[in-house]
Amino acid sequence: MKQLDYFFSPKSVAVIGASRDPQKIGHVVFRNFIEGKFKGRLYPVNPNAAELFGHRCYPGIMQIRDRIDLAIITIPALLVPEALEQCGRKSIPAVIIISAGFKEIGDMELEDKIKKIIKKYHMRAMGPNCLGVLDPYSEVDTFFLPRYKLERPGPGNIAFISQSGALGSVTLDWMAMKNYRISKFISYGNAADIDEADLIEYLAEDDKTRVICCYFEGIARGRRFFEIAKKISKRKPVIVLKGGVTEAGTKAVSSHTGSLAGEAAVYASMFRQAGMLQAYDIEQIFDFARVLSTQPIPKGDRTQIITNGGGFGVLTTDWMVKNGLPLAKMGAKYLDKIKKVSPPYVALKNPIDLTGDADEERYRVALQAAMEDPAVDIITLIVLLQIPTLTADIVDTIAEFSNRREKPLIVISAGGRYTEVLKKSLEDFGIPTFSYPERAAEAIKALCIYAKTRGR
Amino acid sequence: MKQLDYFFSPKSVAVIGASRDPQKIGHVVFRNFIEGKFKGRLYPVNPNAAELFGHRCYPGIMQIRDRIDLAIITIPALLVPEALEQCGRKSIPAVIIISAGFKEIGDMELEDKIKKIIKKYHMRAMGPNCLGVLDPYSEVDTFFLPRYKLERPGPGNIAFISQSGALGSVTLDWMAMKNYRISKFISYGNAADIDEADLIEYLAEDDKTRVICCYFEGIARGRRFFEIAKKISKRKPVIVLKGGVTEAGTKAVSSHTGSLAGEAAVYASMFRQAGMLQAYDIEQIFDFARVLSTQPIPKGDRTQIITNGGGFGVLTTDWMVKNGLPLAKMGAKYLDKIKKVSPPYVALKNPIDLTGDADEERYRVALQAAMEDPAVDIITLIVLLQIPTLTADIVDTIAEFSNRREKPLIVISAGGRYTEVLKKSLEDFGIPTFSYPERAAEAIKALCIYAKTRGR
Repeated sequence: MKQLDYFFSPKSVAVIGASRDPQKIGHVVFRNFIEGKFKGRLYPVNPNAAELFGHRCYPGIMQIRDRIDLAIITIPALLVPEALEQCGRKSIPAVIIISAGFKEIGDMELEDKIKKIIKKYHMRAMGPNCLGVLDPYSEVDTFFLPRYKLERPGPGNIAFISQSGALGSVTLDWMAMKNYRISKFISYGNAADIDEADLIEYLAEDDKTRVICCYFEGIARGRRFFEIAKKISKRKPVIVLKGGVTEAGTKAVSSHTGSLAGEAAVYASMFRQAGMLQAYDIEQIFDFARVLSTQPIPKGDRTQIITNGGGFGVLTTDWMVKNGLPLAKMGAKYLDKIKKVSPPYVALKNPIDLTGDADEERYRVALQAAMEDPAVDIITLIVLLQIPTLTADIVDTIAEFSNRREKPLIVISAGGRYTEVLKKSLEDFGIPTFSYPERAAEAIKALCIYAKTRGR
Repeated sequence: MKQLDYFFSPKSVAVIGASRDPQKIGHVVFRNFIEGKFKGRLYPVNPNAAELFGHRCYPGIMQIRDRIDLAIITIPALLVPEALEQCGRKSIPAVIIISAGFKEIGDMELEDKIKKIIKKYHMRAMGPNCLGVLDPYSEVDTFFLPRYKLERPGPGNIAFISQSGALGSVTLDWMAMKNYRISKFISYGNAADIDEADLIEYLAEDDKTRVICCYFEGIARGRRFFEIAKKISKRKPVIVLKGGVTEAGTKAVSSHTGSLAGEAAVYASMFRQAGMLQAYDIEQIFDFARVLSTQPIPKGDRTQIITNGGGFGVLTTDWMVKNGLPLAKMGAKYLDKIKKVSPPYVALKNPIDLTGDADEERYRVALQAAMEDPAVDIITLIVLLQIPTLTADIVDTIAEFSNRREKPLIVISAGGRYTEVLKKSLEDFGIPTFSYPERAAEAIKALCIYAKTRGR
């Protein structure tokens, strides 16, 4: 068992500062473990209470007889060093320091003090000034935000690590609403001990994680991070959003997490050389992650667009070209198959415009032809579901072709509630769906870049 | 009464091709008028039926005794000329030709034939190959897509015109889901008679329309359009999304609406010179429209960011700078007011980071200071609602400041269902909300550009 495993699969957890007051962080953290149906043993530490949610309270960590795998510290900053000392003496392997009031408010001395204690006892620590860990498989949940305000995503294969707690929690909440699933979610704060490099190295070995997503403002030990990221990128996609890419943004960073944001171009070049994929906004992280976690690696980057709406075909073509993605040129032999089942006004070019009266059968034949034609590497399917001739069966047809996992298949479909329901079904089948052509094109571009990184 | 008024406020409507068969366009169009509670008189024209939804059917338009304000033609293309002739002889002022099978499939002859008939009788016609008109005030609804598949937005002050029917209908459906409201929605197809210039000229005079949004693939009479758009832009914002901006996209256009897409740069320059705002995707059209239809014109472009999440403050700063928007420098006098009610770790710069324990009162004082300070032109408020110290009352506080209409106030807030509910409340108060900093920054940029166009 690796030492970092104790953060994600502890058998026993102590919450130092577990409180009866619902306004206190220690209360919310402890309650989340109970509500989340955590299977391990729970120990609230609070000298002023006898019991909490039916669990006996301990005055200090030393009074617990059992071995503790993970301690979560939620008490005021000035009391943290003493609590850490006790964790060390009890040989606790993993500690999450949620408490704020260290480097980020300029108190380097206090930060150094806890660093020394962590080192002395060979503990591994996350934080301070962080939200910690959310693991939907083990139900470890140290996020001190109540579940009615911040929903938790279900178990999946996308890992997310965030330097910023607030940005991380907002992202988490949004993912839950979108039904995007996670393997692990980590807010690591000031990184007094465990930093971004440690985390991606750990996640690279994690069987449940297929794609690693990151939000950074600055990176402490750049060289080390670069070497690790470069090694990992060949095995798993690493997607990164960097905050503080302008001069003013950099200044805002320094009063936020206290790290040095550095120059945007330097970071961009470093990410590229390390084979990481840089996203330009939060939504795009998951545009990339959804495609990379579900689709096969394409043999090339020639894309065939199939549509039932001319305007959407035009916009999609524009964005493919803007992203440097060549349009596939399908062979006459394959186009003829579509011709046979289509009215004369169907446009058999790229895009293939099946037009506004296309039904599920016309889509099936076009999909089959594009799947067979070796001149096509990637299929972008535009499906406007408002059209009367198209029934909900189209979902099964698309899933059938996607399940073959022969070529990446990406769906663009936009509309209202009816469309969103069907898109959710497609996502459940592991088919990435997009409302807007440019987001789809940029995600396909990321997939093609990653295909090259893997091939190196 | 202008002749185009008959499209939007007809007292009597005839549907030529109204059918009993639910699969037929004429059936859906007629039924939508009934379901939409249209107040005028309705006349189904169908020689093979006696009645439809309790309305007596007429074998031809000439058999109707009443005066007809608007005729909607849904019969096959080859029968359209004869139906148009009859509309002309009956002196119908407005005709919507939904039927397809003209210029867009290469039949220029048939298109020319109907053009001549329209001209001969001094009718005004929309289409062919279009969805026509949706007006939530008068309940004119010629969109032949069933309401369960395509929802209709409620009455508002944003007008949308689309050359592409499918793109238009998808946009409409999406708007309904987002609760964005419209004044008029027009899909004008091949523009055999009424074109984009006619429509924006008409909408400029329309009291219910505050912002005009357009999707074009090509513009037929460029010079005329430019002159009209330039005149109108000084009175109302005109937002445009142009399809077919790359060479391949242009080729896709030619097989779609049959118009010439022309070069992207030429169009971009024309839009800019005409004072129009070019959006780069469908969502951005409404990012711009929501800000421009609700916010006062700013005196300058200096923006103050107020946040309770550091990471979001950093990302927002980045995007302001990328969009060339200067950060406001608030005076010490105003910052001191915030200092008085805040803990020492609150960062009083730009962004003002009220930090993760900010409550409604801290926001109130910061908003008041930014509203008062003459060094601030625009306020960007980041509100992360997951934070335990922030109650739903923040919605009322923000609305109170926004209602003063002194300075543009834009909100950035991201999360899941809880956040979305509160954001909907803010939108109902006329406060534009954004999930992502870059979308907010780009919309603020559009507002600042428009402020200059108005000032010219």
